[in-house]
Amino acid sequence: MPSAAESHPPLRVALLGCGVVGTQVARLLTEQADDLASRVGAPLELVGIAVRDASAPRDAAVDRSLLTEDAAGLVERADIVVEVMGGTEPARSLLLRAIEAGAAVVTANKALLAEDGPTLYKAADAAGVDIYFEAAVAGAIPIVRPVRESLAGDRVRRVLGIVNGTTNYVLDQMATTGRGLDEAVREAQDLGYAEADPTADVEGYDAAAKAAILASLAFHTRVSLDDVAREGILAVTADDVAWAAQTGHVIKLLAIAERRDGGATGEAGVSVRVHPALVPTSHPLANVRGSFNAVFVEAESAGELMFYGRGAGGAPTASAVLGDVVSAARHRVLGGKGPQESTYAELPILPPSAAVTRYQVRLDVEDRPGVLAQVAHALAEHGVSIEAVRQPTARGAADVAEPGVAELLITTHAAPESALSATVAAVAELEPVRTITSVLRVEGA
Amino acid sequence: MPSAAESHPPLRVALLGCGVVGTQVARLLTEQADDLASRVGAPLELVGIAVRDASAPRDAAVDRSLLTEDAAGLVERADIVVEVMGGTEPARSLLLRAIEAGAAVVTANKALLAEDGPTLYKAADAAGVDIYFEAAVAGAIPIVRPVRESLAGDRVRRVLGIVNGTTNYVLDQMATTGRGLDEAVREAQDLGYAEADPTADVEGYDAAAKAAILASLAFHTRVSLDDVAREGILAVTADDVAWAAQTGHVIKLLAIAERRDGGATGEAGVSVRVHPALVPTSHPLANVRGSFNAVFVEAESAGELMFYGRGAGGAPTASAVLGDVVSAARHRVLGGKGPQESTYAELPILPPSAAVTRYQVRLDVEDRPGVLAQVAHALAEHGVSIEAVRQPTARGAADVAEPGVAELLITTHAAPESALSATVAAVAELEPVRTITSVLRVEGA
Repeated sequence: MPSAAESHPPLRVALLGCGVVGTQVARLLTEQADDLASRVGAPLELVGIAVRDASAPRDAAVDRSLLTEDAAGLVERADIVVEVMGGTEPARSLLLRAIEAGAAVVTANKALLAEDGPTLYKAADAAGVDIYFEAAVAGAIPIVRPVRESLAGDRVRRVLGIVNGTTNYVLDQMATTGRGLDEAVREAQDLGYAEADPTADVEGYDAAAKAAILASLAFHTRVSLDDVAREGILAVTADDVAWAAQTGHVIKLLAIAERRDGGATGEAGVSVRVHPALVPTSHPLANVRGSFNAVFVEAESAGELMFYGRGAGGAPTASAVLGDVVSAARHRVLGGKGPQESTYAELPILPPSAAVTRYQVRLDVEDRPGVLAQVAHALAEHGVSIEAVRQPTARGAADVAEPGVAELLITTHAAPESALSATVAAVAELEPVRTITSVLRVEGA
Repeated sequence: MPSAAESHPPLRVALLGCGVVGTQVARLLTEQADDLASRVGAPLELVGIAVRDASAPRDAAVDRSLLTEDAAGLVERADIVVEVMGGTEPARSLLLRAIEAGAAVVTANKALLAEDGPTLYKAADAAGVDIYFEAAVAGAIPIVRPVRESLAGDRVRRVLGIVNGTTNYVLDQMATTGRGLDEAVREAQDLGYAEADPTADVEGYDAAAKAAILASLAFHTRVSLDDVAREGILAVTADDVAWAAQTGHVIKLLAIAERRDGGATGEAGVSVRVHPALVPTSHPLANVRGSFNAVFVEAESAGELMFYGRGAGGAPTASAVLGDVVSAARHRVLGGKGPQESTYAELPILPPSAAVTRYQVRLDVEDRPGVLAQVAHALAEHGVSIEAVRQPTARGAADVAEPGVAELLITTHAAPESALSATVAAVAELEPVRTITSVLRVEGA
């Protein structure tokens, strides 16, 4: 370490929030104090922990004398403000206040960033202070730094992320045990992997917030939660999961951000969406099990990259927060500034109907000659090209056919979502078609 | 971008070397010029490309007017020097000259860093300039930045890396096709995945260099190539691979760096080694196929992380180089400096005999009662505890037994390498033991 750094006065760290993550951040700041001081070149001093109720019970790792209910006062006497309280307010106001007061800020708040990140980035840029948020996307997995910095000389084409551990656990359980969705969700709740109210997870809101942040980073474009087409896992059945396995796929809830260069199949821009998708079992994302997260990135020169790890939990998230604290602190000691959220590209956000992907459509039809030709004709009329049709004789786990009814499994070539919707509607109207059992997108193939 | 940056004069980039990687770096600097200028806040100007023979044929992407044979002169007129020539000399002298002249340096040279990285780090630190080397470990995979920065607030316990694509391809082919090593190596050569002289890959030298760099980064300790215990894949047989599959493993050449806290099983320090190992098929590293690389990191708070991607190749390596160039260039424009290679921890390097791991020992014994007890007794005498013994009836792909000879497969609990070596020697001396067929370490379980 340079000698100038050794004599640097302590850096004052303020912690906003003392829940599962905040408690771990407080613990690590104490336990790792010596290592952190060596890496930063100055001691890090935790000067206060803002909480709603200072008299509530706390983990023994938390020094109660640091608790305060005056968050606004706290941020004004800190060099680095760490926000792990969650929610948009008062988090946003407190961070803006910290930035105005000249503090660097570190946040794990995906909801706030997905809703209003650009306001914070602009404020930090204007004030010349750092804003870091590695913990806001995929928990402990370093993904913000690699995308912002390591890939700064490359061009990202596509990001596919398993960014919600709860739904990944549920889908994984369905695949390995054959259970239905409700049962798997209940089990996840019993094990503490899912909240009592699992809406944010199973309906894809959590994944959508992360998709917005990932898309903003990857494409240097302002993407907010409202720009993300969102579909959760509630419609995924045990039958879908069994069928996926039979065709060499697993079903994953994916956060997808992709750059479209335009041309014959549509306009140029960025498509951002969250939905369940069939992923080939040979794809690296297919092996991401249980509550783990992973982000798969395709870049023009780097090719395929994947980042894998714990997407949630107190200690893993605190690890990411502390990495950011060290970066911000080093800048205080040695000068310099982290990369800002440059949004110079500002690509247009494409509507959900413009997404282009492959589909697997499963339908029950009358079991007589000519039906397949009729269905194929309907697809062709809408410009949707068929890659494969399967008409299985035995249905394995999905064996529920009535006599006289056959099941068809159609995999299409890439087609725009709008064409597919129109096609499915037309096919459903065909006389020999009893029911469209499921329509699933295929990604990563 | 801040307005100060917009009017920043161009940054002069010198390129040392114009092979597979250098050509791609030159191409990307031209093709991505606008994006790079936006991200940096100043244009990047390639001012020269140092080559041994300026008259040799070059890819059309290379502007021949930039070629020079005067590398020493070139580095003195650059703000950023990019070294992709490889080898220790003249690369080291040129980089030291660049650093002394005040240039930031970016290198992809794993051999140089593994042999003498600390000299370069110290020189860069003294001169107050950046040194970046993301491309030197695992090619396009961002691993240096995550370990140095994202995990700066955490404590790494262990790094397991598949860091050599050639050997991974060879072992993968052996596993999927049942081929022997020689045949798989020849195929890799035909496909261009292996050099005509594959020594650096198959004997583990390349992986060992990367292990040294990874260990230095992860443990803030000076580790050089000589500190790495190295064993290549030449002893791995088709039989080993078939046996691995039968017991739920795959064989991977791993670069391993782990921190040992000492205690009952040995002294504290860092163990760094490269050897083939049995990896359970459920482990994320087991699914790393073909010529891909991956680095698996276990950290105290973050838990398990994995970074996956292309470990070699012109464009992937160039992507990593350019990410570093952007980081260094941003510091020139906006002030600041990248993290230096702090080696404050300086943990002792443990000798190879101190490595503690589990083993799978395969041996041919006389097929009569009491032999198993005799072998088990020999292990117990050396303090090696048995986790499982298998005496398979049918040997599948490995079916080569003579009559009267049985095969035993012993998996041990974790034991120090020294104890295991002594044990194996003792077992080999036992009267009913015909031959020790293989001894393989088990990792990641």
